[in-house]
Amino acid sequence: MPTETKLSVGIIGATGYTGAELARLLATHPHAEVVLATASGERAGQALSDIFPSLRGVCDVKCEQLDLDAIAARCRFVFIALGHGKAMEIVPQLLERGLKVCDLGADFRLRDAKDYEQWYKLSHACPDLLSEAVYGLPEWNREKIKGARLVANPGCYPTSAILSLAPFVGAGLIEEQSIIVDSASGVSGAGRSSFGIDYHFPEMHDNFKAYGVAGHRHTPEIEQGLQDALGNVSATVAITFTPHLLPIARGILSTCYANLKESHPEWDGGDAHKVLSARYADEPFVRVHPIGHFPQIKHVAGSNFCDIGVAVDERVNRLVVVAAEDNLVKGASGQAIQNMNLMCGFDETEGLQGAALFP
Amino acid sequence: MPTETKLSVGIIGATGYTGAELARLLATHPHAEVVLATASGERAGQALSDIFPSLRGVCDVKCEQLDLDAIAARCRFVFIALGHGKAMEIVPQLLERGLKVCDLGADFRLRDAKDYEQWYKLSHACPDLLSEAVYGLPEWNREKIKGARLVANPGCYPTSAILSLAPFVGAGLIEEQSIIVDSASGVSGAGRSSFGIDYHFPEMHDNFKAYGVAGHRHTPEIEQGLQDALGNVSATVAITFTPHLLPIARGILSTCYANLKESHPEWDGGDAHKVLSARYADEPFVRVHPIGHFPQIKHVAGSNFCDIGVAVDERVNRLVVVAAEDNLVKGASGQAIQNMNLMCGFDETEGLQGAALFP
Amino acid sequence: MPTETKLSVGIIGATGYTGAELARLLATHPHAEVVLATASGERAGQALSDIFPSLRGVCDVKCEQLDLDAIAARCRFVFIALGHGKAMEIVPQLLERGLKVCDLGADFRLRDAKDYEQWYKLSHACPDLLSEAVYGLPEWNREKIKGARLVANPGCYPTSAILSLAPFVGAGLIEEQSIIVDSASGVSGAGRSSFGIDYHFPEMHDNFKAYGVAGHRHTPEIEQGLQDALGNVSATVAITFTPHLLPIARGILSTCYANLKESHPEWDGGDAHKVLSARYADEPFVRVHPIGHFPQIKHVAGSNFCDIGVAVDERVNRLVVVAAEDNLVKGASGQAIQNMNLMCGFDETEGLQGAALFP
Amino acid sequence: MPTETKLSVGIIGATGYTGAELARLLATHPHAEVVLATASGERAGQALSDIFPSLRGVCDVKCEQLDLDAIAARCRFVFIALGHGKAMEIVPQLLERGLKVCDLGADFRLRDAKDYEQWYKLSHACPDLLSEAVYGLPEWNREKIKGARLVANPGCYPTSAILSLAPFVGAGLIEEQSIIVDSASGVSGAGRSSFGIDYHFPEMHDNFKAYGVAGHRHTPEIEQGLQDALGNVSATVAITFTPHLLPIARGILSTCYANLKESHPEWDGGDAHKVLSARYADEPFVRVHPIGHFPQIKHVAGSNFCDIGVAVDERVNRLVVVAAEDNLVKGASGQAIQNMNLMCGFDETEGLQGAALFP
Repeated sequence: MPTETKLSVGIIGATGYTGAELARLLATHPHAEVVLATASGERAGQALSDIFPSLRGVCDVKCEQLDLDAIAARCRFVFIALGHGKAMEIVPQLLERGLKVCDLGADFRLRDAKDYEQWYKLSHACPDLLSEAVYGLPEWNREKIKGARLVANPGCYPTSAILSLAPFVGAGLIEEQSIIVDSASGVSGAGRSSFGIDYHFPEMHDNFKAYGVAGHRHTPEIEQGLQDALGNVSATVAITFTPHLLPIARGILSTCYANLKESHPEWDGGDAHKVLSARYADEPFVRVHPIGHFPQIKHVAGSNFCDIGVAVDERVNRLVVVAAEDNLVKGASGQAIQNMNLMCGFDETEGLQGAALFP
Repeated sequence: MPTETKLSVGIIGATGYTGAELARLLATHPHAEVVLATASGERAGQALSDIFPSLRGVCDVKCEQLDLDAIAARCRFVFIALGHGKAMEIVPQLLERGLKVCDLGADFRLRDAKDYEQWYKLSHACPDLLSEAVYGLPEWNREKIKGARLVANPGCYPTSAILSLAPFVGAGLIEEQSIIVDSASGVSGAGRSSFGIDYHFPEMHDNFKAYGVAGHRHTPEIEQGLQDALGNVSATVAITFTPHLLPIARGILSTCYANLKESHPEWDGGDAHKVLSARYADEPFVRVHPIGHFPQIKHVAGSNFCDIGVAVDERVNRLVVVAAEDNLVKGASGQAIQNMNLMCGFDETEGLQGAALFP
Repeated sequence: MPTETKLSVGIIGATGYTGAELARLLATHPHAEVVLATASGERAGQALSDIFPSLRGVCDVKCEQLDLDAIAARCRFVFIALGHGKAMEIVPQLLERGLKVCDLGADFRLRDAKDYEQWYKLSHACPDLLSEAVYGLPEWNREKIKGARLVANPGCYPTSAILSLAPFVGAGLIEEQSIIVDSASGVSGAGRSSFGIDYHFPEMHDNFKAYGVAGHRHTPEIEQGLQDALGNVSATVAITFTPHLLPIARGILSTCYANLKESHPEWDGGDAHKVLSARYADEPFVRVHPIGHFPQIKHVAGSNFCDIGVAVDERVNRLVVVAAEDNLVKGASGQAIQNMNLMCGFDETEGLQGAALFP
Repeated sequence: MPTETKLSVGIIGATGYTGAELARLLATHPHAEVVLATASGERAGQALSDIFPSLRGVCDVKCEQLDLDAIAARCRFVFIALGHGKAMEIVPQLLERGLKVCDLGADFRLRDAKDYEQWYKLSHACPDLLSEAVYGLPEWNREKIKGARLVANPGCYPTSAILSLAPFVGAGLIEEQSIIVDSASGVSGAGRSSFGIDYHFPEMHDNFKAYGVAGHRHTPEIEQGLQDALGNVSATVAITFTPHLLPIARGILSTCYANLKESHPEWDGGDAHKVLSARYADEPFVRVHPIGHFPQIKHVAGSNFCDIGVAVDERVNRLVVVAAEDNLVKGASGQAIQNMNLMCGFDETEGLQGAALFP
């Protein structure tokens, strides 16, 4: 397919890990190409492949200062890979200029501006856009994404937690206030600009620790996603979420717990497995493991798959769902491209068919 | 102190990781020394330091075939570091010969032979000794351990879980059936003889996975320990326990969840912290972290410490306790030596004062 | 491109790491597809994606017993990913049946059957084919590879060493007997079937060690490759080669040393850099680093690139060349596909354009 | 031994990794104790165990601002664990105040002030002390160390390289200008205050790279150590040294190459092994491996041992010596304590008998 017919894509904030991952994945996308990348400070002017030598010969686009008019002139689709608080300052102008936008940050994920202000400690700059923005989890919002001009790409942890639990919440099978999500992530989730003593190699290597205990910002996002699955039922989902840091670069594993409602006393792992298998049978990127098998980070790292396994702890009538994904792919840049594919009418799997790098 | 006055110690099953760790730790113990080590098959006849070159010049004792009379003639104290099912075949004879015994395996941990048979799929060979064996968690059974001739050294996961939760269970603060223990362990916990494709370096490196979901054998041991803490209260502790494998060699981190009883609606993290701090104030090997701080594997690996931190997720009135330990030290060989110290009248911390290897 | 026009490819010995890597890479190749995979023993009958869950939904071909006629009936191109000694038993029959063959093992790399027998301790089964087989290093043998029906895919270490040193040897710049190649490889290089205590995760993790000191089988292969670069000059290349094992899954870094001939007393790093840059200017998969920059495994792992940097230690007039590659891609399966592309008339880079997985 | 009789020790610059390691090792030393630790900036006033939670309950000494009179009043021995350039500003005053000093930095290692200025780009502040300072490699300078008041503790790489090669250089067996030292170190060698993007966990994890190629500051230190071994022979040692960074926290492995002199044409590995074994037979911390066995980082990490193995590549008449040590123990703080033991009349091994943490 000749270059001129490809979708011209811009990456705003290309020098973080999700920006680099967009560039990596888009380099082999048959219908889209990165034509513009922005960076701030001294990095504007450098080639993206000078910052990330792994991209040399693969994506040598030069980083430039953010210029909304230049973007509008040269791009038809924009990914925003900035920290929260920054996207909401520019999204209205990008939409006005006719661009389709997928924001990888948190600014448009929570539909209620009060929730955003409570958890992110910032007033929302364009609360009116919150109802238009579509939460970009294709397995649950595919049709809305297809028609959206603004998609809020889900957080890494919420992707794994919602995919794991929504089928059970939606079927009314679990007690809505009994849910616990215990997750572990590779350190790339902490970002590239955040380097500090906590992520200094000698201190994080061979380490494992909880962080953000009882207060991580992905908590309300998971709750919103599960509440959506519940639909009109008059119950409130409330969870405990504990993230941990793993001494690896990439990957998330979430182990989710929920009490089965007493109305299902005879339930076992097979019943739970059927719910999950039926729900995701046609999904290209969700792989439900056979009964008795559970996912491993190593089987998904580098790919856009989310693998899920399930059991019932029959002694206590509790559901245990385990999900694995790559935090930078299905948990960020891969899912963003999946959303772009839907928003732009491409096959949903284009550019995302690669398997995990194993071993 | 002249050598002849040291306690002569034997290690039965010295060629696994817990055996080697006993040898490492005892090498700098002022009042005990390893005089005998057993091995099976072709390893009998080799020096322990040929099998573990790290021990060369530190513990060069020669491994020999198991010979109970030889042990009785040359040792006053014996550690058993065999897989479950083997210790119960020899413990009666060792006790008859007047030896004090600390078993690092599972054979004498569960007081009810039926539980042992249910979870370990073996008939117990000497059920009459189960009531005599003392569960060797010094922080909860110190006085009994001092007078014991047979101590069952706790499992690695149960040590972290019981130390974390028993103060709260004992104080009647948490719902006994709401407890979830989500743990992650380094691969040394899988042992040395179990090498196979699952633990082949390229497959376990950069990996993280759950295993034994809803069925791990440490489940009844944790429940027994917490039930003991509950004392005479007529309630039954029932937990869900999910272990995971971390891509590191050593260390366990357990994140434990439990619903606070409704009778404590105003409870916060400070209240929980007080319970924990008060309980462990005088313990040499339990370090309670300040409020808002949580333990990390890297701060305990190589040492006999168990570090604990606590929070309350006030939105859902749920306790979150996080504990870190070295699975081979406080979770196995270090705690075994702590028990030996108590059983033999030494200062409880002898040979165990070393800090974690950091970084 | 419709499926029926794709090149039908067979993988003989698909259950090792190089076999799985071929399947991973070919899954996104536009002109070739894996239609057949062989396995031995109980694995015949299993889907490749049951053995490697990372491949589920990506390459679900079923493994079957080796059957040369079945292969000839269904394939036009065959990769052999067996241990040395096995390929030479079947290559003649595969060629007779009209197949093109790329052997990833060692059987056809050394042109002299005596060298093979000396280093591999086996008589060669078809020495007459040794002169026909083309050593599949495209950067040095591209034209011969295009016309070959049998290509011997280079070893992982030799690929990095020959690419690093051949430009200097070929230009007559270095003393042919002063060459030292000091290499380090990820553990996947040891293969999948070789799991044993040396590669048991707890023992290899955090470890680093030399092996095969002064006797590794890649020694004569490197020497042959450099001797070829020397051409008709009457000098003999003789090297010292020391491989090491790194505690990572993938990647090789080779640091190569050689004394500059006395006829170039004024040489510095810039001169060396010019030689390298000029030689590889048009190569799609060799990236020469700027002066003062050296390659890192993390910048190539997962990709088919070999990155090279060079310096001159002017105090002692010695060349230092450092090269990084992924041992399973440019060091094995990626290079094999590069050879297939050349042998079959495809663009040399098809299926191999992906960047390294960073971070 | 009652506390009051212990040697009172101060650590100047306690908040780096070598400072923390001194505190860890001295905590179990029977005859010395840390009574004072200095820190700069906001860290003065904090307990060392607040900075390093691994030390909590082990070494809770409070850090204070540097005050030479306070040190003289309260300490009899001082370790300096500052970056180069700082020790030389205070050593004269410390010596004047009657303190014995072991400097872990580079300021007093090179005997020629011109070498210091050339490699460290600083004028030496007290060149007159260079001839008095003893290079603290006990295996080669034991008697001088015993009588010294100022010891320059060797660099981490030079310790491994000199221990490996000095016996052969000293015996006149190798060509003095053919020596190549190829080393790999864990990241703790880069220090704690140097955190930056290069050592950010996601970028260093799974990575391996050369650095300081043909220009690392340990080059002249290795050359000086080997020149000393050569004694009065009129030849000049000149080496190429290439350090690499390993994705581990601790440990160094050095692979050293040298051409055997033509006067020893029949030499093999057994001959080389005899030289090494004879030289180190009585050394408590150097373990020469049997012929055919080579050291591994995992067997020494956490201990004060340096393990060495040797081979001869008979095809090219070249010696290959491999040495492993822990860069923070034998390569820094452990060796510093070994020097303190010698300087203060303690048994040389006190506080250093621990084995490596394996696995």
